[in-house]
Amino acid sequence: MSTYLTILGYNSAIPTINSAPTAQFLEMEERSFLIDCGEGTQVQLRKAKARFSKINHIFISHLHGDHCFGLPGLIASFRLLGRETPLHVYGPVGIKEMLETIFRITETHRGFEVIYHELSSKQSEKIYDDKRVEVFTIPLDHRIYCNGYLFREKPKERHLNMAEISKYEEIQTCGYQNIKNGKDIVLSDGYVLKNEKLTNAPSPSVSYAFCSDTRYNESILSLIDGVDVLYHESTFLHELKKMAEYTGHTTALEAAHIAKMANVGKLILGHFSNRYNDLELLRDEARQIFPETELPNALVPLKIESH
Amino acid sequence: MSTYLTILGYNSAIPTINSAPTAQFLEMEERSFLIDCGEGTQVQLRKAKARFSKINHIFISHLHGDHCFGLPGLIASFRLLGRETPLHVYGPVGIKEMLETIFRITETHRGFEVIYHELSSKQSEKIYDDKRVEVFTIPLDHRIYCNGYLFREKPKERHLNMAEISKYEEIQTCGYQNIKNGKDIVLSDGYVLKNEKLTNAPSPSVSYAFCSDTRYNESILSLIDGVDVLYHESTFLHELKKMAEYTGHTTALEAAHIAKMANVGKLILGHFSNRYNDLELLRDEARQIFPETELPNALVPLKIESH
Repeated sequence: MSTYLTILGYNSAIPTINSAPTAQFLEMEERSFLIDCGEGTQVQLRKAKARFSKINHIFISHLHGDHCFGLPGLIASFRLLGRETPLHVYGPVGIKEMLETIFRITETHRGFEVIYHELSSKQSEKIYDDKRVEVFTIPLDHRIYCNGYLFREKPKERHLNMAEISKYEEIQTCGYQNIKNGKDIVLSDGYVLKNEKLTNAPSPSVSYAFCSDTRYNESILSLIDGVDVLYHESTFLHELKKMAEYTGHTTALEAAHIAKMANVGKLILGHFSNRYNDLELLRDEARQIFPETELPNALVPLKIESH
Repeated sequence: MSTYLTILGYNSAIPTINSAPTAQFLEMEERSFLIDCGEGTQVQLRKAKARFSKINHIFISHLHGDHCFGLPGLIASFRLLGRETPLHVYGPVGIKEMLETIFRITETHRGFEVIYHELSSKQSEKIYDDKRVEVFTIPLDHRIYCNGYLFREKPKERHLNMAEISKYEEIQTCGYQNIKNGKDIVLSDGYVLKNEKLTNAPSPSVSYAFCSDTRYNESILSLIDGVDVLYHESTFLHELKKMAEYTGHTTALEAAHIAKMANVGKLILGHFSNRYNDLELLRDEARQIFPETELPNALVPLKIESH
């Protein structure tokens, strides 16, 4: 039940032979989330050997083509593969009209329901919540309405200390869940067994923030404070700061400042302009400010660990 | 000025790691035509080293996703690459609404005009005509309105026989075009030089027919009679004839019957169901009826020659 991030594509604007536009596959607490879906994402998912059928929630940051043009094909393939499970799609207002127009004209008859969660708030919202995971929007500053997404594991159950528990015959298996949940046990003679004695600390809960596309934007700092892994766009080197500002993007140096100020565990850069053949230039620029910076390693699952 | 066909993708329904959905790049008499545009076509064009910028005419057979989901991304990339030349898009009614909805919602502001030629006739029409090439629709029988396309080179100029022409000083360079066009020359003394003496036969004009997707359909025979190369879908082996009929497709055996009855030069099969790992089974089935059958060779230009 570890959390793994598989970056499927990370280039900006135009797909090339060797790199795909933005898409990520996040496996957290046995949920499979897809984040953005540029053209070709379904083939990237196959290359990554990700299980299509487990994706029940897709989060789209914004409606520029390099972040969403793979959606119609992916959903059409779900149908051809016999999917019946409802699919939740989160994204800016307009995503429903676009997809439903495409499905109507291409006669993509679905055997499953697509449930749209259209976003328009400029404030962070909790948009997904179950017993183990929650997801929040991270309002970004791009040329078009855009959200990043924050994925958080909720606090986990404490681990049973069986060596200790087995000393008390009257503690039955059916009582274990209460102990995992942190409750003390009152024995039949009235003696109170403190939970700390019966359990060990839970596994840490990890968090992941996806921030693309955006200008340098300090207003996200409180939302992403302390996340274990931050993926932040860095379309340009800082020498093209004016270009970044004009086009609604961030420089590698700026992404590192955000990571440092937010005390994140690790920064992964992405959404690089096609002008850069040597991506290490971007990584090295960021490392001047925030040493725990990495380039994305496409199709290779990254374990997200508590820092 | 030879004619080359580059098949970019030929699988049906779902893109896989090793094969792309339908798209073809046809270079005929210095025109560059794109036929169908499944998801990922722009990357296939890059792999084939085809010159994007020369594509001014796109012909879409039908509005199923595996034949058109690559269009929004390709057109968005044209914009990002600075295109200014108008782009002509031919396809079924609905293609304009679909693309314009996508472009509005994704804020794909184009620096060039997209000129839509929406098709709805069930009869063959000439839809493109210039001094060297003409294109006709081939009405097909699929689950949704669908056309194949017939591309024909017009008769070419005769070749000058310079050894003969140079014997007559009074024939000036400015008169060559008339000779190429087949005219006789009247010398100043009234002597008539027959054109056949001054020229050699023109290079043959070639033709190419694209037929996908369709049920077995003999009504196309007169339209494709004698074409040099026929690409015809063969989604299934003939043992799945009922499945082919139900889903609106053709078997390899049937495609071969069409090729034989239409006296074509060469048959290329395509649009294979993903159930077939060994495509030679389909080729071998067709060769029983029509020996000049080939499997598509993706990304490798095929010279279309007169037969």
